[in-house]
Amino acid sequence: MKRNSQLDEQGQLRHFLSVEGLGRAVLTEILDRAETFAGVASRAVKKVPLLRGKTVINLFFESSTRTRTTFELAAKRLSADVLNINIATSATSKGESLLDTLRNLEAMHCDMFVVRHNQSGAASFIAAHVAPHISVINAGDGSHAHPTQAMLDAFTIRQLKGEFNRLRVAVVGDILHSRVARSQIHALNILGVGELRVIGPKTLVPDSVTSLGVHVFHDMRSGLKDVDVVIMLRLQRERMQGAFLASEHEYFHLYGLTEDKLARARPDAIVLHPGPINRGVEIDSRVADGPQSVILQQVSNGIAVRMAIMSMVLGRQVESVEVKH
Amino acid sequence: MKRNSQLDEQGQLRHFLSVEGLGRAVLTEILDRAETFAGVASRAVKKVPLLRGKTVINLFFESSTRTRTTFELAAKRLSADVLNINIATSATSKGESLLDTLRNLEAMHCDMFVVRHNQSGAASFIAAHVAPHISVINAGDGSHAHPTQAMLDAFTIRQLKGEFNRLRVAVVGDILHSRVARSQIHALNILGVGELRVIGPKTLVPDSVTSLGVHVFHDMRSGLKDVDVVIMLRLQRERMQGAFLASEHEYFHLYGLTEDKLARARPDAIVLHPGPINRGVEIDSRVADGPQSVILQQVSNGIAVRMAIMSMVLGRQVESVEVKH
Amino acid sequence: MKRNSQLDEQGQLRHFLSVEGLGRAVLTEILDRAETFAGVASRAVKKVPLLRGKTVINLFFESSTRTRTTFELAAKRLSADVLNINIATSATSKGESLLDTLRNLEAMHCDMFVVRHNQSGAASFIAAHVAPHISVINAGDGSHAHPTQAMLDAFTIRQLKGEFNRLRVAVVGDILHSRVARSQIHALNILGVGELRVIGPKTLVPDSVTSLGVHVFHDMRSGLKDVDVVIMLRLQRERMQGAFLASEHEYFHLYGLTEDKLARARPDAIVLHPGPINRGVEIDSRVADGPQSVILQQVSNGIAVRMAIMSMVLGRQVESVEVKH
Repeated sequence: MKRNSQLDEQGQLRHFLSVEGLGRAVLTEILDRAETFAGVASRAVKKVPLLRGKTVINLFFESSTRTRTTFELAAKRLSADVLNINIATSATSKGESLLDTLRNLEAMHCDMFVVRHNQSGAASFIAAHVAPHISVINAGDGSHAHPTQAMLDAFTIRQLKGEFNRLRVAVVGDILHSRVARSQIHALNILGVGELRVIGPKTLVPDSVTSLGVHVFHDMRSGLKDVDVVIMLRLQRERMQGAFLASEHEYFHLYGLTEDKLARARPDAIVLHPGPINRGVEIDSRVADGPQSVILQQVSNGIAVRMAIMSMVLGRQVESVEVKH
Repeated sequence: MKRNSQLDEQGQLRHFLSVEGLGRAVLTEILDRAETFAGVASRAVKKVPLLRGKTVINLFFESSTRTRTTFELAAKRLSADVLNINIATSATSKGESLLDTLRNLEAMHCDMFVVRHNQSGAASFIAAHVAPHISVINAGDGSHAHPTQAMLDAFTIRQLKGEFNRLRVAVVGDILHSRVARSQIHALNILGVGELRVIGPKTLVPDSVTSLGVHVFHDMRSGLKDVDVVIMLRLQRERMQGAFLASEHEYFHLYGLTEDKLARARPDAIVLHPGPINRGVEIDSRVADGPQSVILQQVSNGIAVRMAIMSMVLGRQVESVEVKH
Repeated sequence: MKRNSQLDEQGQLRHFLSVEGLGRAVLTEILDRAETFAGVASRAVKKVPLLRGKTVINLFFESSTRTRTTFELAAKRLSADVLNINIATSATSKGESLLDTLRNLEAMHCDMFVVRHNQSGAASFIAAHVAPHISVINAGDGSHAHPTQAMLDAFTIRQLKGEFNRLRVAVVGDILHSRVARSQIHALNILGVGELRVIGPKTLVPDSVTSLGVHVFHDMRSGLKDVDVVIMLRLQRERMQGAFLASEHEYFHLYGLTEDKLARARPDAIVLHPGPINRGVEIDSRVADGPQSVILQQVSNGIAVRMAIMSMVLGRQVESVEVKH
C-alpha cells in the first residue's frame, strides 16, 4: 500500500498539503488536539512553549493579510520565531529560481514553510523538494486546496453539532473555482458526514463532484431543506466578468443566503463562511450577523486548528531530535 | 454623572483615545508609571514580562514608520507579541468593511489595537465597536488628537521642570491643524499648568482656543517672554501650498525658533518638538541641537510613556482575568 | 599607533564595518566563536539567550530579502528583539535627515544597526555618528565591503580545508565592482592564506589589486591550476549593458565555472559562491549542485558567523553595563 506523501515513515503527519488521502484517524487527531489549544486563547498568557526555538517561514507568493495573520499568530502563540517572506516582491527578483530559494532557506535551518500560491500544486511541489527536516503547510494553492480552512470548518461543526454521521451539510456557491469547497468536501467525507450536498448554478458546479458522493442541487431552496449546516462560499467577483454569472444581483436572488431561504434548513442549523464575506452578494447581513451565524467562531477556531497542525508536524521532529541526542 | 468612555466600570483606563475628559489623577498615574519604565531602557535586559502572551496589533491606516516603531518597541519591551497590519495596502483590498476586519481580529483574540488614521474620530469609532476584552490606543487621528505624544511631552516637562502649576508654557506654530497641539493643550490644562500660551499666525490659530483658558499671541517675541517651556510644532509643508502661509522663508522669520527669539524665554527654559523636525523652517539647527533642546529626551520618554499606557489598559484585563479563574 | 575605529578603547570589536584594518586575532576570534554557534542550529531549540532584551534594527536603504533574513534569524536566535526599517520607502519621506533618523533610533535605546546601503562608506559614516552604546554592522555598502560575507567564506574554508597558510585560493569574476571580492581578499590576506589569486577579464580586474599581494590571471584555466578553493562571484547582469562585457554567453565560455575547468583545480578543491547564483552565467549547474560545491554550507555558516559577530559587539556592552551597575 502506497503511503501518503504527507506522512513520514512512522505514519505521522509531516506535511499538511491536502486532506485528500489522509485517514479519519489523522483528521480526528487534528480536531482533538485543536480542542486543547482552543482554551489557550482565553488564558491571560496566550502562549505555550511547544515550538520554542523553531523557525517558521510564511512563504507567500500571493498576498493575503488575513491568512498570513492567522498563521503568524498561531506560530507566535506556540513560541516559534516567525519570518514573513513575500516572494512575489522579493526573493526571485534577483533571478533566483524557486528551488534555489528553498535550498537557501533550508540551509538557514528553517523548520516549516507555510505556503500560499496562486497555482494549484505549488505547496506539494515544494514539499516534494524540501529537506527531510522541513514541514510544509498549504495555506491555499490556486483552485486546488485550502486544507486548514476545511479543518477549522470541521472543528466548528463538531464543536457545535456533535457527531458528523448524524449531520446533513450543504456547501453553497462557486464550487468549480473554490479550493475551500474542494477541501471541505474531502474533509467532511473522510470524517463520515451523514449527507453532503452542494448547491450552485450549473456553470459553477463541476460534473465530477458527484463522484465524491455528493448530492448536487441547482435550486437552493430544495438543497437547503432540513440541513444542519450551511457552508457559504465567497464569490470571487472576478468571475462576474466572465461567462459564468449573469450579475451580482441575480446571483444574490438565486444563491444568496437570506433569512427566508435559511428557514428551509433545520431551525438549529448553523451558517459558516470562510470570509471575507461579500455582504449582499452571497450572504445577507441579517444572516451573517444573525444568531445562526458562526462565522467569527470559525476565525477563533482557525488559530487553534493551525496551532494543532503546526505542533503535530513539528512535534514529530522534536521527538526524533530528542531521541537522537 | 456620565462616565468617560475611555474608562471601564471600575473607573480604570480601558482605552486611551484622547486626554480630553480624563481627570488629573489618571494622567498623573500615567506619568508616575512611566517613571518606573524609564529605568528599564538603561538596563542590560530592556524587557519586563508584564504583557507576555498578549497580542498587540498596530493597525495603521496611515503609514508612519516612526510612530509604529515606538509602539512596536514599547510592546516588545513589555514582552507582548506584535503584529503590524497596514490596512491601507491590505485588509480592505478584498472589499471587506472596517467593522468586519475588526470582528475578525477580535475573534483571533487580539488584546489591543494601536490605531493610526488620517480621519478624526477613527480611533474612537473603533473603540466604540470593539469587544469588551479589547483596548484601543489612539496613535494619531486626523487633526483630532495624538494623546500619547501629549503625555510624553508632559512627562518630559515634569521630569525637567517639576510641578506644572509653577510653569509658563508656550505652544508655537500651526495650532489649527495640529492634533499634537490639541492634545497638549488639554493635557497641560488638566495637569494644572500655571499659564498656557499659544503663538502663531492668525490664519493658524483657531478662535475657539481661548475658550480653553489659553493666552493667544501672534507676536512670537511677546509670547515667549519669560516662559519655562517652549513647545514647537512641526509645520506641515502641504499647508504652504494653501492660503494659510506666505512662504517658508517668511514663516521662519516670524515663527521659527532661533537663539535670538529663545533668549526672550527664561534662561533655563527647555525646548520641545514632536519630530520629525524641519530644520530652518520652524526651528533653527542651533536651537534644535543646542543645550536647551530636549527633543531626543522626548523620544526616549516616548517609549516609557507608551509602555505605561499599554500596561495600564491591559494590566486592567490581566487582573480581571485572574479574578475570573 | 592609531586604533582602528571598529575597536573600542579596550581593543574589543565595537563595530564590524570592514575586515580591512582588523588583526588576525580578531578575525580568528570571530571564526572560533562562530564554531560554537554552528551547533545551535541543529538543536531542537535553536536559541541562546545572549542578546535577550537587546534591540537590533535592520536599517536597509537597499532592499535585500536574503541578507535581511540571515541577520533577522541570527538576531532572533540570540533572543534579541528585531525591527526591520526600510529607509528607502519610509523614514526620510517626511524630509528628515539621515542623522536625525539615527538620533531618534538611538534615543529609543536601540543597541545595534545592521546597515545595507548602495553607497560605499555608508555604514562607516553611520558608525562615526552613533552614540557610544550603539554598534553598527555593515551588511553591504556600495562596492566597498561586505565583511560578514567574507567571514562566512573564511569560516567555510577553514571548516573544510583547515589551516589557511597551506591553501591556494582563487577568486573568479567581476573583481572591479564586487564588495564581496574586496572583503574576501582582505580577510584571506589577514588570515594568512598561502596564495591568493584573482581571475577575470581585464575590464573587471582593477590594477590596484596587485598591491594586495594577489596574483592576477586573465586565463581561467591557468588561474585554477592546483587551487584548493574556488570562490565564484555573482555576475551583476547590469554590467552586461555597459562596455565591460561582450555577452553572457561569451562570459560563460571564458569565466563560467564548468566541470571541465574545475578539473584544473586540485581534486579535493571546494567551490564557493555568495549567492544568489546565476546558473549558466558564472557557474554551470553541474558544478553548483555537484559534490565539490559548498554553497549551501556557506548559507548555514552565515547564520553562525553573524551570531558570532553580533554577540561579540554587543557582548562587549553587556559586560560594561554590568560593571556599571
